[in-house]
Amino acid sequence: MTDTSVFPDPAYMETVLAPLFEGVKTHYAGHMMAINRAHLVMLAETGILGAEDAAAIAGALGAIEAETDIASLTYTGEHEDYFFLVEAELKARLGDLGGALHTARSRNDMDHTMFKLALRTRAEALQAALATLTQALIAKAADEADTLIVAYTHGQPAQPSTFGHYLAAMIEVLLRDMARLNAAIDGIDHCPMGAAAITTSGFPIDRGRVADLLGFSGPLLNSYGCIASVDYVTGLYSAIKLVFLHLGRVVQDMAFWSSFEVGQLYVPNALVQISSIMPQKRNPVPIEHMRHLASATVGRCDMVVNVMHNTPFTDMNDSEGEVQQAGYAAFDSGGRVIALLTAFLPACSVNGARVRANADAACVTVTELADTLVRDDGLTFRQAHEVAAKTARAVIAAGQPLGHGFAAFAAAFRDVAGRDSSLSDAAFADATSPETFIARRNRPGGPAPHALRAALQEYGAELDALTAAAATRTTRYATAQDQLARAFTDLKKS
Amino acid sequence: MTDTSVFPDPAYMETVLAPLFEGVKTHYAGHMMAINRAHLVMLAETGILGAEDAAAIAGALGAIEAETDIASLTYTGEHEDYFFLVEAELKARLGDLGGALHTARSRNDMDHTMFKLALRTRAEALQAALATLTQALIAKAADEADTLIVAYTHGQPAQPSTFGHYLAAMIEVLLRDMARLNAAIDGIDHCPMGAAAITTSGFPIDRGRVADLLGFSGPLLNSYGCIASVDYVTGLYSAIKLVFLHLGRVVQDMAFWSSFEVGQLYVPNALVQISSIMPQKRNPVPIEHMRHLASATVGRCDMVVNVMHNTPFTDMNDSEGEVQQAGYAAFDSGGRVIALLTAFLPACSVNGARVRANADAACVTVTELADTLVRDDGLTFRQAHEVAAKTARAVIAAGQPLGHGFAAFAAAFRDVAGRDSSLSDAAFADATSPETFIARRNRPGGPAPHALRAALQEYGAELDALTAAAATRTTRYATAQDQLARAFTDLKKS
Amino acid sequence: MTDTSVFPDPAYMETVLAPLFEGVKTHYAGHMMAINRAHLVMLAETGILGAEDAAAIAGALGAIEAETDIASLTYTGEHEDYFFLVEAELKARLGDLGGALHTARSRNDMDHTMFKLALRTRAEALQAALATLTQALIAKAADEADTLIVAYTHGQPAQPSTFGHYLAAMIEVLLRDMARLNAAIDGIDHCPMGAAAITTSGFPIDRGRVADLLGFSGPLLNSYGCIASVDYVTGLYSAIKLVFLHLGRVVQDMAFWSSFEVGQLYVPNALVQISSIMPQKRNPVPIEHMRHLASATVGRCDMVVNVMHNTPFTDMNDSEGEVQQAGYAAFDSGGRVIALLTAFLPACSVNGARVRANADAACVTVTELADTLVRDDGLTFRQAHEVAAKTARAVIAAGQPLGHGFAAFAAAFRDVAGRDSSLSDAAFADATSPETFIARRNRPGGPAPHALRAALQEYGAELDALTAAAATRTTRYATAQDQLARAFTDLKKS
Amino acid sequence: MTDTSVFPDPAYMETVLAPLFEGVKTHYAGHMMAINRAHLVMLAETGILGAEDAAAIAGALGAIEAETDIASLTYTGEHEDYFFLVEAELKARLGDLGGALHTARSRNDMDHTMFKLALRTRAEALQAALATLTQALIAKAADEADTLIVAYTHGQPAQPSTFGHYLAAMIEVLLRDMARLNAAIDGIDHCPMGAAAITTSGFPIDRGRVADLLGFSGPLLNSYGCIASVDYVTGLYSAIKLVFLHLGRVVQDMAFWSSFEVGQLYVPNALVQISSIMPQKRNPVPIEHMRHLASATVGRCDMVVNVMHNTPFTDMNDSEGEVQQAGYAAFDSGGRVIALLTAFLPACSVNGARVRANADAACVTVTELADTLVRDDGLTFRQAHEVAAKTARAVIAAGQPLGHGFAAFAAAFRDVAGRDSSLSDAAFADATSPETFIARRNRPGGPAPHALRAALQEYGAELDALTAAAATRTTRYATAQDQLARAFTDLKKS
Repeated sequence: MTDTSVFPDPAYMETVLAPLFEGVKTHYAGHMMAINRAHLVMLAETGILGAEDAAAIAGALGAIEAETDIASLTYTGEHEDYFFLVEAELKARLGDLGGALHTARSRNDMDHTMFKLALRTRAEALQAALATLTQALIAKAADEADTLIVAYTHGQPAQPSTFGHYLAAMIEVLLRDMARLNAAIDGIDHCPMGAAAITTSGFPIDRGRVADLLGFSGPLLNSYGCIASVDYVTGLYSAIKLVFLHLGRVVQDMAFWSSFEVGQLYVPNALVQISSIMPQKRNPVPIEHMRHLASATVGRCDMVVNVMHNTPFTDMNDSEGEVQQAGYAAFDSGGRVIALLTAFLPACSVNGARVRANADAACVTVTELADTLVRDDGLTFRQAHEVAAKTARAVIAAGQPLGHGFAAFAAAFRDVAGRDSSLSDAAFADATSPETFIARRNRPGGPAPHALRAALQEYGAELDALTAAAATRTTRYATAQDQLARAFTDLKKS
Repeated sequence: MTDTSVFPDPAYMETVLAPLFEGVKTHYAGHMMAINRAHLVMLAETGILGAEDAAAIAGALGAIEAETDIASLTYTGEHEDYFFLVEAELKARLGDLGGALHTARSRNDMDHTMFKLALRTRAEALQAALATLTQALIAKAADEADTLIVAYTHGQPAQPSTFGHYLAAMIEVLLRDMARLNAAIDGIDHCPMGAAAITTSGFPIDRGRVADLLGFSGPLLNSYGCIASVDYVTGLYSAIKLVFLHLGRVVQDMAFWSSFEVGQLYVPNALVQISSIMPQKRNPVPIEHMRHLASATVGRCDMVVNVMHNTPFTDMNDSEGEVQQAGYAAFDSGGRVIALLTAFLPACSVNGARVRANADAACVTVTELADTLVRDDGLTFRQAHEVAAKTARAVIAAGQPLGHGFAAFAAAFRDVAGRDSSLSDAAFADATSPETFIARRNRPGGPAPHALRAALQEYGAELDALTAAAATRTTRYATAQDQLARAFTDLKKS
Repeated sequence: MTDTSVFPDPAYMETVLAPLFEGVKTHYAGHMMAINRAHLVMLAETGILGAEDAAAIAGALGAIEAETDIASLTYTGEHEDYFFLVEAELKARLGDLGGALHTARSRNDMDHTMFKLALRTRAEALQAALATLTQALIAKAADEADTLIVAYTHGQPAQPSTFGHYLAAMIEVLLRDMARLNAAIDGIDHCPMGAAAITTSGFPIDRGRVADLLGFSGPLLNSYGCIASVDYVTGLYSAIKLVFLHLGRVVQDMAFWSSFEVGQLYVPNALVQISSIMPQKRNPVPIEHMRHLASATVGRCDMVVNVMHNTPFTDMNDSEGEVQQAGYAAFDSGGRVIALLTAFLPACSVNGARVRANADAACVTVTELADTLVRDDGLTFRQAHEVAAKTARAVIAAGQPLGHGFAAFAAAFRDVAGRDSSLSDAAFADATSPETFIARRNRPGGPAPHALRAALQEYGAELDALTAAAATRTTRYATAQDQLARAFTDLKKS
Repeated sequence: MTDTSVFPDPAYMETVLAPLFEGVKTHYAGHMMAINRAHLVMLAETGILGAEDAAAIAGALGAIEAETDIASLTYTGEHEDYFFLVEAELKARLGDLGGALHTARSRNDMDHTMFKLALRTRAEALQAALATLTQALIAKAADEADTLIVAYTHGQPAQPSTFGHYLAAMIEVLLRDMARLNAAIDGIDHCPMGAAAITTSGFPIDRGRVADLLGFSGPLLNSYGCIASVDYVTGLYSAIKLVFLHLGRVVQDMAFWSSFEVGQLYVPNALVQISSIMPQKRNPVPIEHMRHLASATVGRCDMVVNVMHNTPFTDMNDSEGEVQQAGYAAFDSGGRVIALLTAFLPACSVNGARVRANADAACVTVTELADTLVRDDGLTFRQAHEVAAKTARAVIAAGQPLGHGFAAFAAAFRDVAGRDSSLSDAAFADATSPETFIARRNRPGGPAPHALRAALQEYGAELDALTAAAATRTTRYATAQDQLARAFTDLKKS
């Protein structure tokens, strides 16, 4: 069997190598350069490379960076990939010494280090966007602490609550989503460098130093795991998926609330598409767009995670360049959802008249009337329920709000209890008013403004803690970048 | 509640409208123009528009097309979308008459018509690529009808077969995948035009004529369904998912076959990445790339389908522009898998020496020896199995291939049957040879070359039928394009 | 390395073998017996087994069936699985001859034959349930051909239509879903028997005969594919997934329509959960249950399909017993959705008063007014739109339905056109009435009762064709069962 | 519109209510009773119920528990669900007072509290099983710290490592998976009780007390979120999915390692299925079963999570009984994977002879030879690589292991460097031996036994911390159970 074929096959070049090269140009070339610099600094500091050699390589690396217009490169097949192109450049300038930069490392550990650097920028940006959204929602919730809404279950009006209380439920989920994302970011915060091809190196490398120079919290320990474990990817995209799965549920509520017939949520003109001929037709289309963009984000996260399914632990490409880049679309669509939602929700308001009309039509305070009769008027539960139900039936038949049904109530009470209720007309109106309903629910987690404000304070503290954690990391990244720049510059001088 | 906000909100413009506009520029502007022309022709032919008016609109449309450099347009927010931009252009040139083109239609029916036009091009290209692959595999299978392989089950050597026979199994799946895709293409072959916003129109439109002019097989019937049913999307992407899910399984076999230790599949130099220092190290990386690209394609198909999940039947955007465009990435990655596989498999060959060595070490013909003893030497099944097993144990202990174990066989036979076998040394060697094993399996669907050739002929006929169906459709598309061009030109003359 | 361990390891027995055994007892024992019988008949008819031997085996098989209380068996680990238990029983009764039944076959081809037999029962039941649902919807659509509804897009009222027209949209999707399922059933309609372990057999088997006796349409050709291709599974579950993904979208419409504020769909008492204290609170909970059961069905289909992802084409267990059985849960939950929906939708009715109120409030006929002015009153599009919009604004401000706005209309017309409209008050009322709106949409696929009835007739014919295809298959299954019983009985006599 | 229909419709009863009732019997009846008791204790302690009333209810609850054989109940439709059945029992015994237990609560908060109680048992069991597995792997890794393996990348032999080092990579992923699971368990550790229907209650409830009595870490704050947030479900199943997605990748390595041709992993007889006739055929089928069971677990987790997709935030049933129960299948199949793997991996051993043979054939130490020449013999990288490559080519041509290639090496060195190498034959053999290769990789995370042992110690500490966290929780659960029993008994006395 003679094999005269020559790498690369044109189909392979076209379907794999050229797209990969384009991807590296767009996403990784800068990170590769940072890794080159950090690794070189470490090789010099540990004495694996002599100072003179290191200086020469540093000089050449700097010159290549300065002289290469990466964006204009086209894949030719001459070098297998961008890495080899840089190495060839080094060798062209330094001869054999050009190969010395690759001592004690491999494309394997370099690749996953690049991927982590590229992911961490995106993940931190997403976390920051979520912090902005959450902050905006906390502010909105505080503003809307007294704004009545109809609270729904099973898609049907159930009880009065406040817009602030609803938003607080949403905020709690967001804070937990951010905590999950925070933990997932920790998963990309350990540096694979030093794993080399699989097993570390025979050279006396300093893995901690490289990790520091690249802004990681430290090296990732097991060297086989450094290049084979994909859970930094799956963990991150799983956490992101949940963010958008959960937001999509709120979006469905918004769709319902802003429907013509419900009308609880008023979406301002800036965010509705209208019809010139149908003045009443207002399509709050941003809601639909948030829904499908959130769904697409969910689907893109699933795609990345599921690509890993049933791949051998020690195969490589299933978690490398192409798959990494495919995942970035999730950050794009997800980022758009958050940006839009951050503009949308604060801009919306509750249509109080519609809330009042729906609340009245649905008698949403009737359970509190029954509770009141138990607490304040000495009825048993059965009696209280019977009085409340009779009253409700009467006002509905009369097309009245519950609060206007004192006469019906008084009759029902007499009928059931065989005596007059101690409630005055005003007390009845109070007992059946949404405001009273809410004021009485001043329990931890309840809608009463006082309880809500206490909760919002707690959320603010949680958000601050998450933001502080992110700030600690981003400061570390920035500090490392400075250190690396200095150390690299120093190398050239030596 | 005064609302002084003005559409579009900057966040909405940036996150939704501008990206949509870019998408329309890239993917739909041409299709929208075709729809404009076809609809106009129909309006004129039915008399809904007078000849003069139609001629004027046709002239303006032609001029707009000629004068607009779509690629250079930037979204400004002045017009909600590209549709309104064109309408504004028409009105600028024709005054009130500019609005007449939109008689008896809506963006709803136009949108899904555009999406179907855009999908059909992609789906036909995918089907054509699959046909090319299948054709290449049929040819390869014919070439490899006599090429021995070890056939595996549970990842362990089980029986001899031929490469042709293995490829035929793969071809059968591909043909069924193509049949599924063919059926799914039928789902995009009915025209929504005439549904208008939801309920067709009060004008006496001719839905069949528009469908014909756009190359569809006919109108899609129910008008609400025209704009609300998404199964043309879900059906198509479900079919595509299966193509790549199934190909990915073959890819896993190729990975195993081409491993260093198995070595059954020889991947030529043009398709392996090598190491200058490790001459024996040959990484058949295209296999891994086919795996993850196929997986990403699967994931992208899932994404599109699952975006529709739990969306109201009569909501719109979840199946429109953004989602449609997100799906195109599946055609891209999937197309790359097929192109690469079409180059890869025919270029590979079976390493006969390794097959022989593995087959010998694994005694893969031993079951046929037992069958032979039942058929030709009068043993019961139990006896035959006992003789075969003893023989196998003996040759394995001696490190011999089974075919060299005549002495061990003869002794085992005597031991079990109490008499000499009627099999000569040559007959024994024959009974245990992979070639005999295969020749005897001349049943429908079996690996014997004769049976295989009959099967390949059948596959060729099935492929021809699928190709003919595709040709009928693509001819129809082309013919319609010509008709539309002529009819539109005629309009302008009138 | 001495290995004194003995199969089966207790953990393997507990986690794999015992559950598999239970599964075979519940799902496959009967099918295995049918396969045993059909294979035996074929072995006898082809002369591979002599008549006497075949009679003896047939007798023993019959006796084992009669004497074994399968349900009471417990897995002991003595036999690897149920197959070996039966074989041991045969050998206990027949000695060596007991093994002869396994001539020219393998557990591989038997397994997938069993799985197909088990799937086809379930798939046909699902198809029959879908036929019942579709038939019920066609009848309901005919009944509701004149029942006005508000048709929504983007969750907002858009145009009048009829309930029948909406249901027809749903019916079209269902018919296409049934066609997809029908094609998928074809994928389980070819018999793997004769593939034996991988490569067919050296014995002169008759694959067609076994296929016939088991009611298949014929053998599946490529023998490797018979045991390795999983697309009969993936194709079926993909088709089922779509059924429930699509139904789930209708369910979301039903949830919206039956909300307190919209109230378009009246769900009868038998299908709402109520509150004794809140007489107006009616939770149409079946809708939610249909949603999550449909979603769970979708998820179960995905599970089965995705189990196959990245499994080697020629591995076996990923498509065998455990996975097959895991899939049956999809038939269970899916079957419940269809049964409930078949009861639910026909029982529901449209609340005409609410429809009228919503239609009036939303001015849903205003576009038809504009079209009328173009068609009948000589206005340009711009003028007609301006008149219609002014009229709409006026009636909305006055809280009137559009049809009562003749005075406003007349004023607007004069204002815009500088003349009186030719429309009388009655003609105006007519032009703006939902009934007229619908009557004028008598296009193919439109809501006008005449157009709808023509469509329903077409759907009926399509449903009949699908039902006929199913009947042809189920008749074949039944006939084969009889033939097999007779042929097996005859065997015993010989 | 008269509606004479009566709840429940038979179809609803059969498809929804009866299955739900069966589910409650199996999974939730005990938890409901605990909630009843804890809530009652709190009502008494806060004075919402008087001591006498509380004692009476406690007595009745105890009697109902004692007298009801839950397993034998059949759903009749008389009571909507099990909750109402118990309430009816209470009212039958206590009259009106029977309803008082339901003061200040709702089925909404009760349901999610039950679901969390049911999930926490399962999640803790899963975590415990993972701890056992991880502990076993740490022990195994310590035992196998010196056991050579061939380490693969891209499915091809790449470098020597140790089985212990490979297992350590796996352990690191497991520990991170356990940490994710630990965080997810925190998500089910907050009690919804007190949220009542949506908004807490007008009664002065003590949410913290109920949470304590049920063993939660505290109440979940926002009351709407208590019944609407589903992230305790999605977070948990997302974490579980990753466990099995990651294990499935190791399983694929095991499949490859145990293949006939690779033979690196020896699976003992107790865990292989064999063939009586093919003595060499050993199918390590547990591997396949772990793969598909892991995949099914992944799929079941996806199902649960995706059921929530696009459901309104404030709808209920999509995260309730049916869906909760559907998820339990993931714990079942997942638990089986872990149990089997915990038996499987420790029972397996590395086949040293095969490792040596594969390592030799693949020249896996050649890169270390080059590194040695740089470090110890003064060559440049290019020269060292050239010498190593020439040596490798020579030994491969001669069919020798690299370590026997001193002569070839000496010649290559002379050829490239123009001088003799300083390496002796013994030094060469040492430089190319796998043992040296590993010993030199004594870096953090490397395979040298010393480095590995340090890592294992760290893993042990991490595992201990996770186990301690679980123990703290399970102790809390147990303590709460005792407290609740005591407090409830005390109630009855009062």
